[in-house]
Amino acid sequence: KEKLLVFAGPCVVENREMLFSTAEGLKKAAETIGFDLIFKASYKKANRSSSGSFTGIGDEAALALLAEVRQTFDLPIVTDIHHPEEAALASKFVDVLQIPAFLCRQTELLEAAGKTGLAVNIKKGQFMAPGDMRLAAEKVAATGNTKILLTERGTSFGYHNLVVDFRGLPQMSALGYPVIFDATHSVQLPSAGQGISSGERQYIQPLARAAVAVGVTGLFFEVHPTPEKALSDSATQLPLSKAEPLLRELQEIFEITKKIQPLI
Amino acid sequence: KEKLLVFAGPCVVENREMLFSTAEGLKKAAETIGFDLIFKASYKKANRSSSGSFTGIGDEAALALLAEVRQTFDLPIVTDIHHPEEAALASKFVDVLQIPAFLCRQTELLEAAGKTGLAVNIKKGQFMAPGDMRLAAEKVAATGNTKILLTERGTSFGYHNLVVDFRGLPQMSALGYPVIFDATHSVQLPSAGQGISSGERQYIQPLARAAVAVGVTGLFFEVHPTPEKALSDSATQLPLSKAEPLLRELQEIFEITKKIQPLI
Amino acid sequence: KEKLLVFAGPCVVENREMLFSTAEGLKKAAETIGFDLIFKASYKKANRSSSGSFTGIGDEAALALLAEVRQTFDLPIVTDIHHPEEAALASKFVDVLQIPAFLCRQTELLEAAGKTGLAVNIKKGQFMAPGDMRLAAEKVAATGNTKILLTERGTSFGYHNLVVDFRGLPQMSALGYPVIFDATHSVQLPSAGQGISSGERQYIQPLARAAVAVGVTGLFFEVHPTPEKALSDSATQLPLSKAEPLLRELQEIFEITKKIQPLI
Amino acid sequence: KEKLLVFAGPCVVENREMLFSTAEGLKKAAETIGFDLIFKASYKKANRSSSGSFTGIGDEAALALLAEVRQTFDLPIVTDIHHPEEAALASKFVDVLQIPAFLCRQTELLEAAGKTGLAVNIKKGQFMAPGDMRLAAEKVAATGNTKILLTERGTSFGYHNLVVDFRGLPQMSALGYPVIFDATHSVQLPSAGQGISSGERQYIQPLARAAVAVGVTGLFFEVHPTPEKALSDSATQLPLSKAEPLLRELQEIFEITKKIQPLI
Repeated sequence: KEKLLVFAGPCVVENREMLFSTAEGLKKAAETIGFDLIFKASYKKANRSSSGSFTGIGDEAALALLAEVRQTFDLPIVTDIHHPEEAALASKFVDVLQIPAFLCRQTELLEAAGKTGLAVNIKKGQFMAPGDMRLAAEKVAATGNTKILLTERGTSFGYHNLVVDFRGLPQMSALGYPVIFDATHSVQLPSAGQGISSGERQYIQPLARAAVAVGVTGLFFEVHPTPEKALSDSATQLPLSKAEPLLRELQEIFEITKKIQPLI
Repeated sequence: KEKLLVFAGPCVVENREMLFSTAEGLKKAAETIGFDLIFKASYKKANRSSSGSFTGIGDEAALALLAEVRQTFDLPIVTDIHHPEEAALASKFVDVLQIPAFLCRQTELLEAAGKTGLAVNIKKGQFMAPGDMRLAAEKVAATGNTKILLTERGTSFGYHNLVVDFRGLPQMSALGYPVIFDATHSVQLPSAGQGISSGERQYIQPLARAAVAVGVTGLFFEVHPTPEKALSDSATQLPLSKAEPLLRELQEIFEITKKIQPLI
Repeated sequence: KEKLLVFAGPCVVENREMLFSTAEGLKKAAETIGFDLIFKASYKKANRSSSGSFTGIGDEAALALLAEVRQTFDLPIVTDIHHPEEAALASKFVDVLQIPAFLCRQTELLEAAGKTGLAVNIKKGQFMAPGDMRLAAEKVAATGNTKILLTERGTSFGYHNLVVDFRGLPQMSALGYPVIFDATHSVQLPSAGQGISSGERQYIQPLARAAVAVGVTGLFFEVHPTPEKALSDSATQLPLSKAEPLLRELQEIFEITKKIQPLI
Repeated sequence: KEKLLVFAGPCVVENREMLFSTAEGLKKAAETIGFDLIFKASYKKANRSSSGSFTGIGDEAALALLAEVRQTFDLPIVTDIHHPEEAALASKFVDVLQIPAFLCRQTELLEAAGKTGLAVNIKKGQFMAPGDMRLAAEKVAATGNTKILLTERGTSFGYHNLVVDFRGLPQMSALGYPVIFDATHSVQLPSAGQGISSGERQYIQPLARAAVAVGVTGLFFEVHPTPEKALSDSATQLPLSKAEPLLRELQEIFEITKKIQPLI
């Protein structure tokens, strides 16, 4: 059977306990349901709305915990980088480097990620048309590294709101790279709260279902054991307890709706 | 089994032959696949981009042909009205009245449609938030007629472009009315051509799949035997030959993905 | 000196007293400051957000009051129409017919307005690119009536918000018709309130100043003696007491900044 | 008299000759017309659409040329930085550090800029509401440096297009910092060309006039002796020959329209 590729894990490494309990829960879901899991966590948050926000427990400490998760649970790891200098360090601990959406035009960052030889997941900027991700991908591919994935996470729609344009999924797929749908950042309401991004958790499920029906290689979720206590993105992280039933449903839709065969 | 509700038919009544061949083809598809069909055609086009565009063969002539389709193929009919005065006339020939998206704020039109006692399908204005369709529905409901459907057909996204916000489907559903997804108008590019609306026919299929996976009562398609010769909306009408395979796929997804059971 | 053309008056005819006091105040301001005034009021409101909203005192009664204002104050009158049938009636009482923004694509309405021979002010739809107003204007011009004005009143920008794209003023001007900037509807927040349009009155002044500096033939304001008591658009009508100082400032900017002489 | 603050100069340091001829021309215009000039040029371009684009002549070489302009023409210099590490280097050569719009949420970059003690000009992200620039400014202010300017350069409006929301100027001004209007980037059409940003140079003048009438502290222009030969942003840079007449007009409007005195 074909397996959904799932990037999932907490927004940021908060501490050892929450990191490991999330990894354990997701690993179990992956084995039970049969999807491919890549464990996700940021080792620092560099673009929080407000300077008072939590940004991490220290880069090396967080990366070391991620490496421990990798070994303990035999899981590949993805994390995001923000400056070219971070690529070399992070690449020692993880399997996939992720380029944040705001930074998808930063040439040096894309090149540094490409040069590590790791797979590079580029998030589409909220300000960018899907087809223009060709240019971002080419900056990585120019380093000789074509292990590239493209992720949709919503597009600016007025102020304090994002819309997912599902035409963008086939448009990015046509660029020749696997396409991932980020179901938790896509439901954010940027800066709609007091200095923090708010969000609409109830739309994670319908938008993820839509993405699978349209056709994607995989999905991306931020997952937290207790989102209401999360130190970042608490409005939109998926409760760990919901990950298993939601991914069961999505893996089923993935198998039965099959890849789209263009009719028109 | 649960049946998808499908509004389908040509954009406008062009002549007897194309009307009947479309109705015959769609009726056959409905019987083979097992969906509920409501045959759609406008008897006049009142809001074409340009005044040189075809607007119809005459109101009474077109309505008479629709009534003949109704009887010949035993199909309910939906058509759209543009002025309050049209409600009484059209209601003699059809089963469902449709309010065009640009006119979804016109109180007298909504009231006139409501007063006929027929079901009223209100298209969401391209300028309107999904939740605000509550106000449009209330204008009909105030006449004592609560046979109301709400249709998504895309939202203004910059100039000459529409985006479908799939959060809008559950938002409109929460208003208590069945929700229809109009898959052919949603792929229009308004006025992007020389005085006509252009469109991207290749996105009818992915967007319709997405809508079914998110959860809708039904779908709306403009269907034409030869869209390239159509007198209106030729860029976005679905070729009649594609209706059967597309609707087969969509009815299947409808049955197997089932109605969404909110998890989050 | 060159005079600003100003369409101003209450959103809707509420009663004789408020209509006459507004007309008197505006007439006095026009004489003192030296701008050309066309008195504005709707005789009915056909597209209120909610069906519970005030829609008018009766068409003929309201038109008769407008005609009385015309005679008493020697002022030309503009009012808006919503159905083709209204053109003939309204044209007996007023000097300029106005096409509401939502209705700027309705061919029959534009043609009916054109056929009266009166000047026709077409508001740009919130869903329409400025250059596409060419098609709306051509529908009127096809009747042989080229006394056409085009009015900017904001463009859909996400939900519950409008943005004024000031590139649109020269774009519409390039179509060959005088361009008016509607400073009070442009600051509306559509349906952002409970079933009513809210707004940001504080931006009337900066946006009107911007429009004059960019270059327009005139401005449009809804003006009410006591906006907080207005039966419609109370969030955005300009208090009558502010009309004189605001228009003094705008007429001055109009004279001193002069028409734009394209440098680039 | 009150003087407009003008940031102007070429997009990027291409070579000594073009840099000096631009500086000489602008300096002469500033003396003749009487505006305050801060000379602008990037020493590298880090976020070009495409990896084939010109990115600079080398950081130190470019910064040395900027320092030479500063001394030769007695002009303050502004340049933009992209990584925290660049702040210390650039601050040795220039007077104002600029944060690119895509990077206005990068906490470490803002903090590094703040810590230099130089004035920091933060461009509003195309994805950001004007009022949310409070959070960006606070990240700089948290370093104890409150010499902050905020610059409007357009907001995402659909794909491949930007709109200037002039309500944003008073909204940012209300945050307590001087507001600059970037008239040349605001007319860009992002990535609308083949891997490059296109633009509409003809709207520089009307939008700059509008900004001055609304009320700004200053304006920002990219200026090039021969934009058609420019190595970046060739569609939108202002020809040096037009800088003098345009700035003469804008300084005049600045003086005569005066700062806005809120009436409403």
